[in-house]
Amino acid sequence: MLNEKMLRLGRERSAIRELFEYGNGRAQEIGRENVFDFSLGNPSIPAPACVEQEIKRLLRDMPAQELHGYTSAAGDAQVRRAVASYIEGAFGVPMDGEHVYMTCGAAASLTIVLTALCEEGDEFVVIAPYFPEYRVFIENAGGMVKAARADKRFHLDMGSLDEAVTEKTKAVIINSPNNPAGTVYGENELKELAVLLKKKSAQKGAPIFLIADEPYRELTYGAAVPYPAAYYRDTIVCYSFSKSLSLAGERIGYLAVSPQCTGADDLFAAVCGAGRSLGFVCAPALFQRVCASCLGKSGDLSRYRENRDLLYNALRSFGYECVEPEGAFYLFVKSPLSDAKAFCERAKKYELLLVPSDSFGVEGYVRISYCVKRETIERSLPAFEKLIKEFE
Amino acid sequence: MLNEKMLRLGRERSAIRELFEYGNGRAQEIGRENVFDFSLGNPSIPAPACVEQEIKRLLRDMPAQELHGYTSAAGDAQVRRAVASYIEGAFGVPMDGEHVYMTCGAAASLTIVLTALCEEGDEFVVIAPYFPEYRVFIENAGGMVKAARADKRFHLDMGSLDEAVTEKTKAVIINSPNNPAGTVYGENELKELAVLLKKKSAQKGAPIFLIADEPYRELTYGAAVPYPAAYYRDTIVCYSFSKSLSLAGERIGYLAVSPQCTGADDLFAAVCGAGRSLGFVCAPALFQRVCASCLGKSGDLSRYRENRDLLYNALRSFGYECVEPEGAFYLFVKSPLSDAKAFCERAKKYELLLVPSDSFGVEGYVRISYCVKRETIERSLPAFEKLIKEFE
Repeated sequence: MLNEKMLRLGRERSAIRELFEYGNGRAQEIGRENVFDFSLGNPSIPAPACVEQEIKRLLRDMPAQELHGYTSAAGDAQVRRAVASYIEGAFGVPMDGEHVYMTCGAAASLTIVLTALCEEGDEFVVIAPYFPEYRVFIENAGGMVKAARADKRFHLDMGSLDEAVTEKTKAVIINSPNNPAGTVYGENELKELAVLLKKKSAQKGAPIFLIADEPYRELTYGAAVPYPAAYYRDTIVCYSFSKSLSLAGERIGYLAVSPQCTGADDLFAAVCGAGRSLGFVCAPALFQRVCASCLGKSGDLSRYRENRDLLYNALRSFGYECVEPEGAFYLFVKSPLSDAKAFCERAKKYELLLVPSDSFGVEGYVRISYCVKRETIERSLPAFEKLIKEFE
Repeated sequence: MLNEKMLRLGRERSAIRELFEYGNGRAQEIGRENVFDFSLGNPSIPAPACVEQEIKRLLRDMPAQELHGYTSAAGDAQVRRAVASYIEGAFGVPMDGEHVYMTCGAAASLTIVLTALCEEGDEFVVIAPYFPEYRVFIENAGGMVKAARADKRFHLDMGSLDEAVTEKTKAVIINSPNNPAGTVYGENELKELAVLLKKKSAQKGAPIFLIADEPYRELTYGAAVPYPAAYYRDTIVCYSFSKSLSLAGERIGYLAVSPQCTGADDLFAAVCGAGRSLGFVCAPALFQRVCASCLGKSGDLSRYRENRDLLYNALRSFGYECVEPEGAFYLFVKSPLSDAKAFCERAKKYELLLVPSDSFGVEGYVRISYCVKRETIERSLPAFEKLIKEFE
């Protein structure tokens, strides 16, 4: 009677959102301050002041029917030009407004580009650990997931990628700064990746695209974040303002195809077709304009650094194993039990809500989102200490 | 190299949006006031005052990280309860917040519910003339379009529906007030439709759903708009605030499944799965809350009535054939040429931008969107008069 796959997806929900809902339930029972919810990547710092200023300015200066009316499907022309010009200036990659498509956030950017690219039999390579929804989005577009492994410090493993990328590969998805591992890919590894993809594209006789999923671009702790499109021309950038401007719920981002990309115009047309066919119509009009005026700005991201330092140092001192994250707002911690799900269940005893790594495509880790209030981390530390003592 | 279907969809674009872009081009050449663009259903009246008031109140009263953060995938719990309670109060149909799913507008409501419902071999019945994107959305979900005909006054034709609805039918989509014909389905025809669907469901041995696409619910000129879910329990309501609150660009609406619907909980789970898999994440957070506070309100819709009366009466006096619209903001006018596309090309000579009916599934008509400034209509009348004189 129903589409079985959608029913299954809806029933399972994402493991992350499931935990988030569990936390809301516990909060009602024992008080929000006693639940240590590290499940969701929901920005915990307020949007920068420019967001509110810009909303108020637009309400004052633009007629409401224009401000809130449809934009072109790919976005308001001025907004698209502003984004293109920002990309050119900040990253030195050729871009024009005609190749920028405003979206309802990075998830929409991904489903749109995957739907635009996917033909029967196509494989999409992801790098484990990977964002679990990649699998959902790839399969919904009709593609197959092929997982390569990251190396031990969660950087690119060229050997594993060399095995995973074949003539069946339509695109490789990378995510730097990385969810869940906090890795930032350096210039050298992006260069090596470009060499590999060029070699494989030549073997295939058609371009293998690089999809750069970049919602965490601005969230780094010192590491430079090289722009993948500057190293490999067949790169499609999927960006979101969710994290930089703390607008996760407003669903606003973009997809950019450099005009130097192979078949850029056709690719962009297919993107327009995919956006139309998935029912996106246009990205939210008010926030398109707000974001265009706040390009390059961000909230006070230093608070995430303070959270990272506090939590990382404490967990290490308690005996947890973890690579220090270079970006994003996640710690990816080795589970003291090989069964990470069992470990996360044990953690709930201490009201600690952690996400097991299984849905990220690797076993034996947990993801801790530290985009929370500092006091949540402070109050949670005794619980983390007691938890690991159970396994000594 | 690309998905051919998406490339084709993207290249063709919608005939309506194509014309809209052509109009923008002409406006730059000869001045906006000299182009009579009747192509797009973009609301021409401002949002009611409650929208701006509510935005400002939320900016003042809610912490930014909460206001702009993720909501649950199905929407903010308070918003969902408010919508359910409004539906119960206004239409007397049982509803609860657990069965309301906030969406990025009616297009998203439709792609989500079609994806949730569609199994291999399913047919979806639409009634010609129908909104052209129904075909795109149905085919993207993997379904097949089966078109019934409306009667001569664009009301339901039970004979045609009886032929079109078979054991292969998963759902029937209705749209009242109707785009493009302006029809409002009355109580009697909804009752007859319910009888037909119950009979056909019994023959099939499974429910045939009714999808009520309702973005124009509030836009009527006196006619009552009966609530389809009150006549047929297996109804899924796809609503949008685009027209009632003039928020078309903000992409905000909902999907509601009455708890009395067959398998309501599973259906709702499949809806959640579909929303997730299409990449919607959640509906825009700020406007979820704005709309929940403006339920039942609307802009000054009387201006659309003035436009309708002015244009309808003038066109009739010039000799055009047209049924008087009971709702929405479209006139569906008989083309003096059997080839409506050729007629629309001729109309461009007078800077009149009209949409030929072919993509609506019928031949020989044009759609005129009268959600424009009154002066645009006034200035366009001599052009309409000259145009039809060519065919006398």
